[in-house]
Amino acid sequence: MEKPYVVGIDIGGTNTVFGVVDARGTILYSGSIKTGKYNDINDYVTELGQGLSLVIEQAGGPDKIKGVGVGAPNGNFFNGCIEFAPNLPWKGKIPLAQLISEQIGGIPVALTNDANAAAIGEMTYGAARGLKDFIVITLGTGVGSGIVIGGNLVYGHDGFAGELGHVIMRRNNGRPCGCGRQGCLETYASATGVARTAREYLEIRKDDSLLRELDPDEITSKDVYDAAMKNDKLAQEIFEFTGNILGEAFADAVAFSSPEAIILFGGLTKAGDLIMNPIKRSMEKNMLKVYEGKTKLLFSQLKESDAAVLGASALGWEVKE
Amino acid sequence: MEKPYVVGIDIGGTNTVFGVVDARGTILYSGSIKTGKYNDINDYVTELGQGLSLVIEQAGGPDKIKGVGVGAPNGNFFNGCIEFAPNLPWKGKIPLAQLISEQIGGIPVALTNDANAAAIGEMTYGAARGLKDFIVITLGTGVGSGIVIGGNLVYGHDGFAGELGHVIMRRNNGRPCGCGRQGCLETYASATGVARTAREYLEIRKDDSLLRELDPDEITSKDVYDAAMKNDKLAQEIFEFTGNILGEAFADAVAFSSPEAIILFGGLTKAGDLIMNPIKRSMEKNMLKVYEGKTKLLFSQLKESDAAVLGASALGWEVKE
Repeated sequence: MEKPYVVGIDIGGTNTVFGVVDARGTILYSGSIKTGKYNDINDYVTELGQGLSLVIEQAGGPDKIKGVGVGAPNGNFFNGCIEFAPNLPWKGKIPLAQLISEQIGGIPVALTNDANAAAIGEMTYGAARGLKDFIVITLGTGVGSGIVIGGNLVYGHDGFAGELGHVIMRRNNGRPCGCGRQGCLETYASATGVARTAREYLEIRKDDSLLRELDPDEITSKDVYDAAMKNDKLAQEIFEFTGNILGEAFADAVAFSSPEAIILFGGLTKAGDLIMNPIKRSMEKNMLKVYEGKTKLLFSQLKESDAAVLGASALGWEVKE
Repeated sequence: MEKPYVVGIDIGGTNTVFGVVDARGTILYSGSIKTGKYNDINDYVTELGQGLSLVIEQAGGPDKIKGVGVGAPNGNFFNGCIEFAPNLPWKGKIPLAQLISEQIGGIPVALTNDANAAAIGEMTYGAARGLKDFIVITLGTGVGSGIVIGGNLVYGHDGFAGELGHVIMRRNNGRPCGCGRQGCLETYASATGVARTAREYLEIRKDDSLLRELDPDEITSKDVYDAAMKNDKLAQEIFEFTGNILGEAFADAVAFSSPEAIILFGGLTKAGDLIMNPIKRSMEKNMLKVYEGKTKLLFSQLKESDAAVLGASALGWEVKE
């Protein structure tokens, strides 16, 4: 192979992590910069360009790099821009793919949002190898999704398809969402959603719980997990509740694209069976008969610390030169 | 063009209608048989084969036919079978595409469900010409859907994708659905759903309505339409309610595939603005910000009496020989 490597760049609100990746999904050389430090996009891109040049040189120079993939909040694959990303320092529409490409001697750069990058990553290196129809659900601070149909990522007519974190799960009295609406899946099934459920349960219910020892405003999904692992009934019910809503959402998603698998990705998956078992029960219970027992539920197979860079890098194999 | 025509076959519970169609979507020769008359699938296929042979001869013989497309309830594109269709006389799994092909000298036959056929029909001859990302929603006795992404119909891993009539719109106290679950879109937004809403409104509410002159058990969506056109407030509110739920469902569907257009097809579309206006309002109101104002709502452009045969025939252009 003439160009044996790709570069993946994961842009988060706090850090930007990047790495040179080979065809098996091994990160060979990597680096990072602080996203939040650069209020001017040009300063950010210059600094990122220097970091990229360094790892590219380590890998043998630009001739070894097939392409660069970027995963960024609100990243639009069609135009290579990030558009009005609430958690990034730069406002409006930023042609990030082009700006990065200019910094690294014109190596082609493709960009998409983090959840889509995760889906391409699973297809290239992870749990979705060989699958043509699947959905990746990212359960982190928010809930995102990357949908693959017939082997292709679904971008929609405008590049913004796949926002399953914002399908409405509770139409009456739904929880207010950061998007301005109410009852979105994200308000229940994210790490912050789990913490929210914990605060609700502690207020409404009377039973004992290890969680009562904590300051309610500081409770995290990790606290709920730790309590559940110590057989705390209330904490276990919080995961039951979370999994139940996810299963309902998945049953509806299956009625849309009938995927072979739904793959769970992100922080909340550390809860393992605590979250997986109620999802499975709820999904099968809520499924239309014709789909029953057909859709697999899987955990991501990308190593967590590497997953975001790997996901982004996978897009690098697909860029047009 | 060596083979200038296709054949479309629409199989309904009562009638099977078929026709020879040209590339512009004109039905040149047509015929029909009574589906319900044949309890034995072999008798049905023999009779259908004779009808088909007749129209094919009128069109100049088998050499003029590129392919045959069939739209049938529970039709599976992948294996050419109808599977456990509740409204057809034949039980179990019937390899209908193969049986029909054998009757007409081996002309290739492809099969899918009616809503998918409608979607391919709109793409080939109708409102979706030139569109690559759209959804067709069929509003008839039930609610069906055909989803096109990147110019391809979405079949899913098992051939059964696109059952948007069975996404859950009301999770508490939802109406019982024929599928055995509760709160499906179909129970509200089909022609029978509209009649159901009418019966509910007449029972719960006290205000006058032309609909009170009718036997509640006999009310149809046509009655509600007629009353609404005479400025009957209650009847108008029934369409408002129906359109509202459809708009909610469409907003969620847009978060999945971000289509350029959603196309309404089937009997209930005769209500025109009465149904379209509340759908538009509700869809935009319920939409995630990034999608606002981007997805067109259109009516089918296939002539209603021909639509089902045209839809099925469109599949005939795509069959592999």
